[in-house]
Amino acid sequence: MIDIAILGYGTVGSGVAEVVSMNAGAIRRHAGQEVRVKWILDVREFPGDLFADRLTKNPEDVFGDPDVKVVVETIGGTGIAYGFSKRALEAGKSVVTSNKELVASHGPELMHLAHDHGVSYAFEASVGGGIPIVRPLTKCLAANEILSIAGILNGTTNYILTRMQQEGIGFGEALREAQEAGYAERDPSADVEGHDACRKIAILSSIAYDRFVDYRDVRTEGIVELTSADMAYAAALGRRIKLVASCRRLEDGRFDAQVRPTLVPIDSPLAVADGVFNAILVEGNALGQAMFYGRGAGKLPTASAVVADVVECVLHVDRTPHYRLWHREDRAVVAPFGETPVRLLVRIDPGGAAEDPRAAVQAAFAPLGGARLVFRPSDLAETGLAFVVGEGRETAEADLRAALAGLEKLGMRTRSLLRML
Amino acid sequence: MIDIAILGYGTVGSGVAEVVSMNAGAIRRHAGQEVRVKWILDVREFPGDLFADRLTKNPEDVFGDPDVKVVVETIGGTGIAYGFSKRALEAGKSVVTSNKELVASHGPELMHLAHDHGVSYAFEASVGGGIPIVRPLTKCLAANEILSIAGILNGTTNYILTRMQQEGIGFGEALREAQEAGYAERDPSADVEGHDACRKIAILSSIAYDRFVDYRDVRTEGIVELTSADMAYAAALGRRIKLVASCRRLEDGRFDAQVRPTLVPIDSPLAVADGVFNAILVEGNALGQAMFYGRGAGKLPTASAVVADVVECVLHVDRTPHYRLWHREDRAVVAPFGETPVRLLVRIDPGGAAEDPRAAVQAAFAPLGGARLVFRPSDLAETGLAFVVGEGRETAEADLRAALAGLEKLGMRTRSLLRML
Repeated sequence: MIDIAILGYGTVGSGVAEVVSMNAGAIRRHAGQEVRVKWILDVREFPGDLFADRLTKNPEDVFGDPDVKVVVETIGGTGIAYGFSKRALEAGKSVVTSNKELVASHGPELMHLAHDHGVSYAFEASVGGGIPIVRPLTKCLAANEILSIAGILNGTTNYILTRMQQEGIGFGEALREAQEAGYAERDPSADVEGHDACRKIAILSSIAYDRFVDYRDVRTEGIVELTSADMAYAAALGRRIKLVASCRRLEDGRFDAQVRPTLVPIDSPLAVADGVFNAILVEGNALGQAMFYGRGAGKLPTASAVVADVVECVLHVDRTPHYRLWHREDRAVVAPFGETPVRLLVRIDPGGAAEDPRAAVQAAFAPLGGARLVFRPSDLAETGLAFVVGEGRETAEADLRAALAGLEKLGMRTRSLLRML
Repeated sequence: MIDIAILGYGTVGSGVAEVVSMNAGAIRRHAGQEVRVKWILDVREFPGDLFADRLTKNPEDVFGDPDVKVVVETIGGTGIAYGFSKRALEAGKSVVTSNKELVASHGPELMHLAHDHGVSYAFEASVGGGIPIVRPLTKCLAANEILSIAGILNGTTNYILTRMQQEGIGFGEALREAQEAGYAERDPSADVEGHDACRKIAILSSIAYDRFVDYRDVRTEGIVELTSADMAYAAALGRRIKLVASCRRLEDGRFDAQVRPTLVPIDSPLAVADGVFNAILVEGNALGQAMFYGRGAGKLPTASAVVADVVECVLHVDRTPHYRLWHREDRAVVAPFGETPVRLLVRIDPGGAAEDPRAAVQAAFAPLGGARLVFRPSDLAETGLAFVVGEGRETAEADLRAALAGLEKLGMRTRSLLRML
């Protein structure tokens, strides 16, 4: 029998206790022995809780207990969680986490610490909730150079976008609906401003390219400014707007890593992810495209990924684990987004200045491969123009924006700029 | 540096040599050392081949070479491949294979043999080509009881069905097209009769349920009898016909394992797989639904899965591997398909006997929960009736067929019976 401890008894932490209990048989079969939750560390009170007998407020109960071989960190954030993770690893205990903030900011240090102490720092649940993605990327794609990753990594925003598209409602209304359904938090900024997806793509990029991609280098744009006009134009182009987090290696060896609203073709495998579902499309140079789809959040799905990592740690107790490390010193150089080639849908309010606004737009983009006019969807009240630019050949975003700045001088206003996949 | 050998220099075998060479950097990064193809065993001549210096016709070169730690078996079939696999394992070499016939028929014996010799028998590439599925099912879903698996596991038949549906052509024409495109073999029976998918679902079921599911117990039906009328009715129901291989645990503890043409809702994640792509939908009791999608066949995708297994074997040289075993003695009991609950689309030629054929059908199915009439698609020349039966509550297939047998006595002929998901 192996003892584990759970730090932080919130949604995911309590899910871990539940899964360990509910699926004890499967876990024993895979781990080769029984797994028991010995301690649950939380400062709060949980009177009458099913696992009340394991609750403690004293960290020493966990860190000083030689029986505890694996510590589950489901506290979240980079404060207490960071200190506790270090302490556990230094005590020779493997740490399993669902904490994307911590992995994205201190992952390399914690992985090195684990390595130095002959234990694991495992974080399958930090990206894609229950969807297997960290291990497949690390293990199953080991014989590939990863060309690109594009993922719908945040269920809250995907739910909001799905509702906006299906019902023709605005962002505010869809957000309220998501909050009422429990899919969005009261302060939704981490989700709707893209910060959550940003940390997740930083983690996936770091694995794929074997060097640390700093999440602060990932250009991040949320969905708060999307309008039903954007949705309508996307539909007219046979696409859906999704918040896509992506990375790829550029020809010059630098990386393109972004989170932004993106027009995804409806026949793309990514488009299959509606509502709170996540999908991650990976392209390898031998494998071609592969996609991973499932519940990217939620108590039991996320706990299921955490406990799978626990099982793997149990199998590796007293053995050197095989987790690859990123090397902090070997940081990935992310190209400034202005230099990154892109294809955009541009919506323009022509104002009243230019005599022939279409011709003006087309003249402005002529040196950049042209601008294709998108016909106004018949059910759209808003007047204005929309163009696809960078279509034939992706063009540096700064160049496209410079052309738009020129048009603004003619009195035209850029309403929105959306990436197209 | 680790030496490996490839047995069988056909499509996948030569792909393995190519991937090892092409992605040497990624492989070294993951395996912690260089991987070299030392021997390629094949009875044929390959004059001028890039790897001609490694070719041998003498098995002793491979099995007697202590430097060779991992043997890749890409011969296929259950003849020579079986003997060579045993010989390699007995010599203390790990074996990696893409050979679904061999895994489905002799997998338990070979896994035990590997276990006894402290090496691995790895077979990620035997199902889903390049798609990671064996390891995710074994490792990432370790904390789940698997409720069901439903997969599009054969690219050839999926290509044919996609063309039939998109172009309105018949099976014969679509098959010829697939043969010309190189997606179907000259003798396509293993694919179009479902035998290939049958072996693959037997392997996945064995992993999911941790006991040997004999492929001979899997009820298998191919796609050769599908007509454009079937396609039209599927479309009228908002579905696509796919060759779905599935398994699930029944309430009585027995298993339902089948391969058959199945009407899949177009908003099911499975429906995303068109053409030669595969998709595998897995449902776990904690995870919920997850899907894996990608190229289910082809030289480099399949080789990419083989080499990922090689890397894992390299990491485990001189360590006990952690592959779970199925236990031959612990065989899964697959329920006879007649006893398995199902929902069916039934197409009927009413003949001329019954005065009111609709009423006759509805009367016949009344004790079985009724039959819902499906309106004839307007573009369909064929006359006749179609019903969905078992809709409210899945019903044992034998009972549904007995009702149809009764109708046949009235002069009605059953044209087709298709499962509905």
